[in-house]
Amino acid sequence: MTRLVRAALLQETNRGSVDANLGAIEAGLRAAAAKGVQLVLLQELHNGPYFCQHESVAEFDRAEPIPGPSTARIGALAEELKLVVVASLFERRAAGLYHNAAVVFDCKKEICGKYRKMHIPDDPAFYEKFYFTPGDLGFAPIQTSLGKLGVLVCWDQWYPEAARLMALAGADLLLYPTAIGWDPNDDAAEKSRQCDAWVTVQRGHAIANGLPLLACNRTGFEAAPTSSIESGGRGLQFWGSSFVAGPQGEVLAQASTDNPELLIAEVDLARSESVRRIWPFLRDRRIDAYGDLLKRYRD
Amino acid sequence: MTRLVRAALLQETNRGSVDANLGAIEAGLRAAAAKGVQLVLLQELHNGPYFCQHESVAEFDRAEPIPGPSTARIGALAEELKLVVVASLFERRAAGLYHNAAVVFDCKKEICGKYRKMHIPDDPAFYEKFYFTPGDLGFAPIQTSLGKLGVLVCWDQWYPEAARLMALAGADLLLYPTAIGWDPNDDAAEKSRQCDAWVTVQRGHAIANGLPLLACNRTGFEAAPTSSIESGGRGLQFWGSSFVAGPQGEVLAQASTDNPELLIAEVDLARSESVRRIWPFLRDRRIDAYGDLLKRYRD
Repeated sequence: MTRLVRAALLQETNRGSVDANLGAIEAGLRAAAAKGVQLVLLQELHNGPYFCQHESVAEFDRAEPIPGPSTARIGALAEELKLVVVASLFERRAAGLYHNAAVVFDCKKEICGKYRKMHIPDDPAFYEKFYFTPGDLGFAPIQTSLGKLGVLVCWDQWYPEAARLMALAGADLLLYPTAIGWDPNDDAAEKSRQCDAWVTVQRGHAIANGLPLLACNRTGFEAAPTSSIESGGRGLQFWGSSFVAGPQGEVLAQASTDNPELLIAEVDLARSESVRRIWPFLRDRRIDAYGDLLKRYRD
Repeated sequence: MTRLVRAALLQETNRGSVDANLGAIEAGLRAAAAKGVQLVLLQELHNGPYFCQHESVAEFDRAEPIPGPSTARIGALAEELKLVVVASLFERRAAGLYHNAAVVFDCKKEICGKYRKMHIPDDPAFYEKFYFTPGDLGFAPIQTSLGKLGVLVCWDQWYPEAARLMALAGADLLLYPTAIGWDPNDDAAEKSRQCDAWVTVQRGHAIANGLPLLACNRTGFEAAPTSSIESGGRGLQFWGSSFVAGPQGEVLAQASTDNPELLIAEVDLARSESVRRIWPFLRDRRIDAYGDLLKRYRD
């Protein structure tokens, strides 16, 4: 028994305008469809630069409603090309209320499902708490014709709780649009540890839950905005390295660190059944003793 | 600021009798102390073979009370050599009531703390549910002169929940006595995936919690007991590979797959402070949305 899904990760770089970025995405989706791909995962906030390098009220102009112009354009492509597409948008929900959202299309122009990033980072050059209200849709997988997609976003990828909740709700795979990069000031050893940790913690989620996992990161250098340079911002070198892992955490495919790339991999969703038979972790969870996971700290 | 702990993992093999095994442990503790080691982690159920390859009532003869003869012998060595020691014993609590326990000594002969394995596996050749009642002491780190030890045991290492609960309770490091090995019938690719998954999921716990982690596994081949051979048992090749990781999941030291070894590594407990400053995962946990972690499944 196999249940193969041909998946692609469109690792892209900021091309300077919404139209240029959506143009590159359209080209990528067409190339993927021509190669028999069924599912395409885009990187986080693919319409523009990673604007969270500074805090500026002007950046809210980048947000748009969902549904809106970007979902219309991507949805039309999903329908035309018969693709499941996971997109990532800066959502304007109301004046002063914005989210970092992922939107799923299932071979139709209408939106199939939406996820709002639950864990919001805030670190130098990643000032996301200024822009994004933490998600209020919970950890709910999105049912598509290919299976239930456990869509999470970037910072969520450091949280085993998020992956577990998706697995417990029946997700068939885990997907992470991402925008993570290096501070150019860090030395090579620190850069290597960071990128390796990013891959490893996600492979850990695949293993702990017996699920395949897709992580699509952006690539390229994005200079610090002027206001950020004044406060010491040095820009970000997004590290690419988008990858696909199987349910034992085995890496099936990985992109380069520094080039746009359409990374294609075949994922067998049926393998989770056999892996979970030899490693039946869900069977033995001590739910009677997990109560303190709902605490901030056990002090 | 550094807070260095010189730690050793005593990766051992079954030497045929309790006395031979405790003799090898005594030699290892003495060698460690001579090299300036402060903390020694032993492998799971180090007093004998991995008897859970079959289900036999006779095997309960291997259990002993805690405190008991083994804790007396190991405690005396901890006191003499001024070592923190994490031991692993088959605990007889009452007739018909047994646990897989870890016992911590803090440079004194008296027991400093105890942990009872919370997650109990049961798979072909790992029939632990027959022998061990699931632990009822919860996930509580043990305070020692070196720091708070988040001691967990083997199968616990596949559960992010266990590591997280230890971190939330202030653990300074995570420690896993282990007995895991290959089914000789599996092919090389499957063996490699399994061992790699075992390392990776634990490195993931280190990363997700910003904590150093020590995992000490046994090594050597242990033939199947007669009753197990009759039901298809082929024995177990324990894969060693004991390792020490830092709080970014970086591997600081790793032992071989097939030889007894005293693996020594310097761990800086103060590094968790700096790593958690750049990756403040504990700050952003969505405890308001984690309620379903206490469910068996979200159906």
